[in-house]
Amino acid sequence: MNMRQLLAVVLLTAAAARAADAPPPDAWRDVDPANLALMDTRYGQIAIELAPEFAPKHVERMRALIRAHFFDGKSFYRVIDGYVAQGGMENDTPASRAAWPPLKAEFDRPVGDDVMFTPLGSPDPFAPETGHANGFPAGRDAKEGRLWIVHCPGTFAFARDNAPDTASTEFYIVIGEAPRRLDRNLTAFGRVISGMQFVQKLKRGDRDIDNGVIKPGRARDPILRVRLAADLPAKARPHFQVQRTDSAAFAAAKQARMNPGTSFLVRLPPPVLDVCDTPVAVRGVKTSP
Amino acid sequence: MNMRQLLAVVLLTAAAARAADAPPPDAWRDVDPANLALMDTRYGQIAIELAPEFAPKHVERMRALIRAHFFDGKSFYRVIDGYVAQGGMENDTPASRAAWPPLKAEFDRPVGDDVMFTPLGSPDPFAPETGHANGFPAGRDAKEGRLWIVHCPGTFAFARDNAPDTASTEFYIVIGEAPRRLDRNLTAFGRVISGMQFVQKLKRGDRDIDNGVIKPGRARDPILRVRLAADLPAKARPHFQVQRTDSAAFAAAKQARMNPGTSFLVRLPPPVLDVCDTPVAVRGVKTSP
Repeated sequence: MNMRQLLAVVLLTAAAARAADAPPPDAWRDVDPANLALMDTRYGQIAIELAPEFAPKHVERMRALIRAHFFDGKSFYRVIDGYVAQGGMENDTPASRAAWPPLKAEFDRPVGDDVMFTPLGSPDPFAPETGHANGFPAGRDAKEGRLWIVHCPGTFAFARDNAPDTASTEFYIVIGEAPRRLDRNLTAFGRVISGMQFVQKLKRGDRDIDNGVIKPGRARDPILRVRLAADLPAKARPHFQVQRTDSAAFAAAKQARMNPGTSFLVRLPPPVLDVCDTPVAVRGVKTSP
Repeated sequence: MNMRQLLAVVLLTAAAARAADAPPPDAWRDVDPANLALMDTRYGQIAIELAPEFAPKHVERMRALIRAHFFDGKSFYRVIDGYVAQGGMENDTPASRAAWPPLKAEFDRPVGDDVMFTPLGSPDPFAPETGHANGFPAGRDAKEGRLWIVHCPGTFAFARDNAPDTASTEFYIVIGEAPRRLDRNLTAFGRVISGMQFVQKLKRGDRDIDNGVIKPGRARDPILRVRLAADLPAKARPHFQVQRTDSAAFAAAKQARMNPGTSFLVRLPPPVLDVCDTPVAVRGVKTSP
C-alpha cells in the first residue's frame, strides 16, 4: 500500500466513523417541486433537479423560461456524442435579448452551512477536493472557501458566449465522460435525476461540422415541452427522493462501488472513487391519489 | 503553480519535444480489416477495432465467433445506463460451452516495443501512468512492466463469471463515465471507433431489477449481425484510420483539449487530462471503387 492508498483508507475510515454518527442509517430528501424541471422529448421525460443554492439567478431564470413556455417546440440543436446535448434557442434575437437579458455568472459559491457537503476522500486531478453537495457532484476549495457543481454525465448548465456574464436561455446536459475543464467556467446548476437514457437517444451532430450544430429541420430532436413540477396539480407531480449523503447507506454504497465484491474482482482496485462515477441514488415515490 | 501543475508542464514540454522529433506532423495508421468488427443494430453500424497485441486469444475467439455467425440474432440483453451495454448469449448451454471453452484471462500484457505508448503526462487516481497504446486508452505500470487497455466510454471487453479464466462469448461496451475499477479485472481488447451514438440508443434495463438484465423478448435490442471487415469484398469494406499518437497533431489536439481557448475559458483549468476524455481521432477514408 502506497501513501496515497493509505491516505484514502484513513479518509474512508473517517467517513465511516462520521456516517456512524448520522442519525438515520438510510435517509432521503424530497426533491422540491419548485426545483424539478420536467422536459418531455419524443423518447421520454427527462427530470432535472435545479440547485438554487448554487445559482439562484439561473434557477430563477429557468423557472421563468419554463413558465413562459420558452422551450416548448424548440430543439436539441447541438448534440456531440460523448460531450454535451445543447438545447433551446439557437440564435438570440433582439426580442429574446430584451426579454431575457444576460445573467451574471454563478460559476461557484461560498462554502456555507446551507449546503451539506460530504467529501469523497479520493484524490482528484481537477479539484483540491470533491464530494457531494446537497446530492450534486461538487468540487470544493477550502482555501478559497468556494464550492461548485462539477461537470459529470447528467450535469445541467447554461451555455454562454465568450464573455463570462452572457448566459441567457440556452442550456446543455453533459452526456459523456466528465469534461471537467469546464468546471467553474460555466454555471452548472442542476442534474438529471431521471431519464438520462432518453438524453442519450438524442440525435447527434458532427463535432467536425459546424461544431456539432445539426442542420435546422427534422433532423433535430424537438423539446416537446418543459414544465415545473410545482406548476402541476399535486396529484400529477412526479415525486422523487434523493439519498442523503450523510447516511450510512450512502457511505456503504460508496464502499460497494469502490469494491464490487472480492468474489468478482481479481485485483483490488485502488481505494479511490471518481466523483462523476459515484452518483447519489434517486428513487421515485408513488404518491397516493 | 503547485508541484503537480509544474510536473504536468514539465511532462508536457517533454512531450512536445518528443513530438517535434516525430517524422510526420500528422500521421495516421490504417485499421487492419482483420481487426475491424462491424456490428449492425437497428440504429446503425458500430465499428470496433480489436487489439490482438493486448489479448491475442480473445481476438482470435472474437473472429471465430463472428465467422460462426454466433452473434447474429442475439441481443443486447443487459444494458445499464451510464455503465455498460452487454450482449451476446445470455446463458451458456452445454453445447455452447463445448464449442467455446473458457479463455485464459488476458487482463494486461508486458510492456513491449510492438506497442507505441504515448504517455499522457497527467496524474491519474487509478493507475501509476496513463496514455495511449496503439491508439487505445491505456494504463502502464513501469515497475511491474505491464500495460493494459483501460475502461473508458467505448472500451470493448469480454464479460466473465466470478473466476478469472471464464470469459467465453459475452461482450460489453462501456457507455458511461469510465468504470476504472474494472481495469485489469476483465479482458479489455478493443474500442468503438465509430457508431458510439448507436450504442447509446440501446434500450436500457433497470440496474435495480435483475442487475440490468432486460426481460427476454421484444424489449431487447437485437444484434442484427456482426461481420469482420476482412471477410467483406475489398470494395465493401469501410476504411478507417486512427491518428498516430506520436504525431505533432495529436500533441496539439491534447493541448487544445486541455485548454479549449482562453478566449472562452475564464479560469484556466489545471493542466491535466483524463485519459478517457482524450480520444484518439478516427477518420473514415473513402476508397475508390
